[in-house]
Amino acid sequence: MSHSPVSLVALLHGPDQPGLVAKTAGWIFARGGNILHADQHRDLEESIFFQRIEWEPSAAASPVAEMDAFREFAGVLGMNATVASTGHRARVALFVSKADHCFHDLVLRWKAREFPCEIVAILSNHTELAEAARGYGLDFHHIPVTADTKAAAEARQLELLRALRVELVVLARYMQVLSADFLAASGIPVINIHHSFLPAFAGGKPYHQAHRRGVKLIGATAHYATRDLDEGPIIQQDVARVTHRHSVDDLVRRGSDLEKMVLAQAVRWHLAHRVLVYGNKTVVFD
Amino acid sequence: MSHSPVSLVALLHGPDQPGLVAKTAGWIFARGGNILHADQHRDLEESIFFQRIEWEPSAAASPVAEMDAFREFAGVLGMNATVASTGHRARVALFVSKADHCFHDLVLRWKAREFPCEIVAILSNHTELAEAARGYGLDFHHIPVTADTKAAAEARQLELLRALRVELVVLARYMQVLSADFLAASGIPVINIHHSFLPAFAGGKPYHQAHRRGVKLIGATAHYATRDLDEGPIIQQDVARVTHRHSVDDLVRRGSDLEKMVLAQAVRWHLAHRVLVYGNKTVVFD
Amino acid sequence: MSHSPVSLVALLHGPDQPGLVAKTAGWIFARGGNILHADQHRDLEESIFFQRIEWEPSAAASPVAEMDAFREFAGVLGMNATVASTGHRARVALFVSKADHCFHDLVLRWKAREFPCEIVAILSNHTELAEAARGYGLDFHHIPVTADTKAAAEARQLELLRALRVELVVLARYMQVLSADFLAASGIPVINIHHSFLPAFAGGKPYHQAHRRGVKLIGATAHYATRDLDEGPIIQQDVARVTHRHSVDDLVRRGSDLEKMVLAQAVRWHLAHRVLVYGNKTVVFD
Amino acid sequence: MSHSPVSLVALLHGPDQPGLVAKTAGWIFARGGNILHADQHRDLEESIFFQRIEWEPSAAASPVAEMDAFREFAGVLGMNATVASTGHRARVALFVSKADHCFHDLVLRWKAREFPCEIVAILSNHTELAEAARGYGLDFHHIPVTADTKAAAEARQLELLRALRVELVVLARYMQVLSADFLAASGIPVINIHHSFLPAFAGGKPYHQAHRRGVKLIGATAHYATRDLDEGPIIQQDVARVTHRHSVDDLVRRGSDLEKMVLAQAVRWHLAHRVLVYGNKTVVFD
Repeated sequence: MSHSPVSLVALLHGPDQPGLVAKTAGWIFARGGNILHADQHRDLEESIFFQRIEWEPSAAASPVAEMDAFREFAGVLGMNATVASTGHRARVALFVSKADHCFHDLVLRWKAREFPCEIVAILSNHTELAEAARGYGLDFHHIPVTADTKAAAEARQLELLRALRVELVVLARYMQVLSADFLAASGIPVINIHHSFLPAFAGGKPYHQAHRRGVKLIGATAHYATRDLDEGPIIQQDVARVTHRHSVDDLVRRGSDLEKMVLAQAVRWHLAHRVLVYGNKTVVFD
Repeated sequence: MSHSPVSLVALLHGPDQPGLVAKTAGWIFARGGNILHADQHRDLEESIFFQRIEWEPSAAASPVAEMDAFREFAGVLGMNATVASTGHRARVALFVSKADHCFHDLVLRWKAREFPCEIVAILSNHTELAEAARGYGLDFHHIPVTADTKAAAEARQLELLRALRVELVVLARYMQVLSADFLAASGIPVINIHHSFLPAFAGGKPYHQAHRRGVKLIGATAHYATRDLDEGPIIQQDVARVTHRHSVDDLVRRGSDLEKMVLAQAVRWHLAHRVLVYGNKTVVFD
Repeated sequence: MSHSPVSLVALLHGPDQPGLVAKTAGWIFARGGNILHADQHRDLEESIFFQRIEWEPSAAASPVAEMDAFREFAGVLGMNATVASTGHRARVALFVSKADHCFHDLVLRWKAREFPCEIVAILSNHTELAEAARGYGLDFHHIPVTADTKAAAEARQLELLRALRVELVVLARYMQVLSADFLAASGIPVINIHHSFLPAFAGGKPYHQAHRRGVKLIGATAHYATRDLDEGPIIQQDVARVTHRHSVDDLVRRGSDLEKMVLAQAVRWHLAHRVLVYGNKTVVFD
Repeated sequence: MSHSPVSLVALLHGPDQPGLVAKTAGWIFARGGNILHADQHRDLEESIFFQRIEWEPSAAASPVAEMDAFREFAGVLGMNATVASTGHRARVALFVSKADHCFHDLVLRWKAREFPCEIVAILSNHTELAEAARGYGLDFHHIPVTADTKAAAEARQLELLRALRVELVVLARYMQVLSADFLAASGIPVINIHHSFLPAFAGGKPYHQAHRRGVKLIGATAHYATRDLDEGPIIQQDVARVTHRHSVDDLVRRGSDLEKMVLAQAVRWHLAHRVLVYGNKTVVFD
């Protein structure tokens, strides 16, 4: 919520030890930086310290040099650290299939300047959204996927991500499972939206499962994709009330509103460097 | 929301057929009854008709005779029907263990006249709540349960339920699993509160499971107990938002508020004859 | 949730009297109709009966004749009644200004077939959304409004609504107040979205008001427009949690999501003939 | 969420200036303290800095001396500061009238160790809750209030608060307005629960007002009492969905659940030194 031109954001975590808050704040202050936000969390059970700290570097300093210096400093403290500049707009690719609700929602939010990023490509295993993508002025890449061609298709996807220097993939109801090899090779975060309240109703056709079980709430879950399908670190979840009057079609429609809101929130937090992953969980500094 | 002295409530379901709404309403009207509420639902996939209908019988009629006559009429339509009088206060037994939050909540709501029932006994496998029960003027029965004595303990519980003519059992965080034999022999509905958003985190220690998985919402589920643990028809569910800052202890505390609200709502609906069970699901006419 | 080709929906209200449920159901049944849904409500304080009843007329009957016959029948019962056919798609005009979030949301839902209507025109006092409207293939009419030209502008709007046979106006963040004369002359329902939890923060700049007061929740309210600004019958409301960390700009962004959801729900209910207005309140048969 | 025996909590606010985070953290670290939590907020519009910082002082230090030293240090920074020790259990008085739901809820939570305080007295202008209070082992003081005796009654209340060294008053549905003189003379915070979503439906009979207006959500608001009735700084608010089917009595019942939850949350936050008041708003460090 700062409107400053450029600030730096560090996400740290590592073994807890006394004085960490004072040390990071002191380091920034000593170099002429002004701390805008600093949030800490301690996992008392596992003795891990987590911090998100955002600061304006001294006008005299080079942001890139400050980022490097902070990483080095964090290493001395024994912390894992990522540092980003709010002046950098991440390059994002959306993967879609036929469903268009998350696609339109993300693109319209981006056009309304909710997301500080560049959407550099739409990738799809189908052609249904080609025209809509081009209507938004976005490049659309059709890469069909079948059981036989999956490896080759993923190779093309990877090539494209690299050529476009993509830094974040968002699966906006992309109905193919990305292989563990793809995820490892891409080396970038992938955010997925699952249309249930995980871990309930993992796997396929979750609204059908929910209807069969007679639950009174349906949900949606945004998570980082990992090699274990539907098991990655959860970023955001929400639910909506349903009744016996709702058919599976009704659940699908109501669920699509949840999916839009939950995925958009996860993307917004990720792009604001508010999500820190450790193990199979996230710390969200909201 | 009627304030009439006595009305009758029928819950019907059976194969759908044209004219059912007109037939039930016509039957009541022809006998001088006044319909207060009538809610229908059609399961279009399975072609089942569900109805809750509440009416004031003619002042000249005997309520008991009207109830019998309606059951017979429903049978002719091919419908399953239960009929209850709002003048009857169900006899309820609470099963508790050591945790007292649902116990206090239910009893205080009952004393505040939220529940049209009589709480006729508190049964517990522990003694921690004996004094509190007696402070409320309620009979407390201590029936310890161990692996070895479970069958005998259930026999004593059954005997007590029969002697007290109990019509509903509420498991207010009772930490023993009731056997399939007990449920079959008792022949009365048993409402349980599970401290998770079922089907997520079925089984033991759900808050520990939720914490380990890193979910962003925790839940509670009230359901009818069946021989398949945590698989019975769901009556009500709700969730609350949690973050990485919440320890397992925090989840337990926040969850206890959910458990109270969800269980109380389920009991309130059951006692108002608003819950119709079919297969493994419920239709809640709220 | 019926998938029948055509059904009829009646909304009734009038003085309560015994036998109304039986009479309406009996009338439909006697003419060979099949009741799909029937919901009743009694306002016990004011002794008013409300009903929404949906049925498939006999295949042999003319729907138009059935609608006329039902209206006549309802009149005999002393009831106000509107009757609609689900085969008719209402003609809708959207009024917009510069903000585009509700506009995109409604149009995309319409294109996704959530709304059984025809959007026949976009009217705006500005030109910002002209291109987007045309991109969707929608007619855009620019009718500027100033204090001096307001009466003339409203005359042009009315003329257009009549020429296009518009049956519902939706104010999708249209930032002009419609005059009492306009509302009376148009003779059709007008749904507005107010960006606060009415009656809190009526009037202008509600997010600024909310921020100043330090509320912990912000809201949005969809209501029928009446001559008393922000005082019309409320159809739907919802809220979202905010904190001291949220600036007015943040409230605006979070509020825009609420506005979309609340307005879409109100329009969906209206088009499904689920909203019955009486006095300054609504009965929503959801 | 720390389980340490004693920590200190400071709430600071004052004119923003560079280096404040580093200075407070550095001061604590230099004296051998270990920071457990530190949350900051900047009001960018008014250039005010807010902080809640919690730390374990050095084992060698006297907590009282550390608290004094911190206050002095904060003064040098130009900050307003309060400092509390988590080892101190605040002395709390509950004011009640006839309604008992908030009373039972607060006392049961306190007995379940949710609130780190001592409830030292129940004050009431009625006698209905005398027996319940004594059943909990709490002192009950009956101080009747009429228009004529109000000044004298408030004098007695003040005297009692002083004699019992009360540090927080909670109005648990106390149905008398405390005078501005009383609030000024008591010199301690007073938390009130208002049974509406303020600022909607301020004043008396808010559920009747809500019913008349036909709102779709009802609310409850916990706030600090100030001389301007219903205008004090809001601590917490929540809402519940209602429909046309709910009578005023139903709103009262549903509202009482909201009131319990909202008031309990406000008291919990206050006792954990998480609420900082400035002007007519609060910053809640949750």
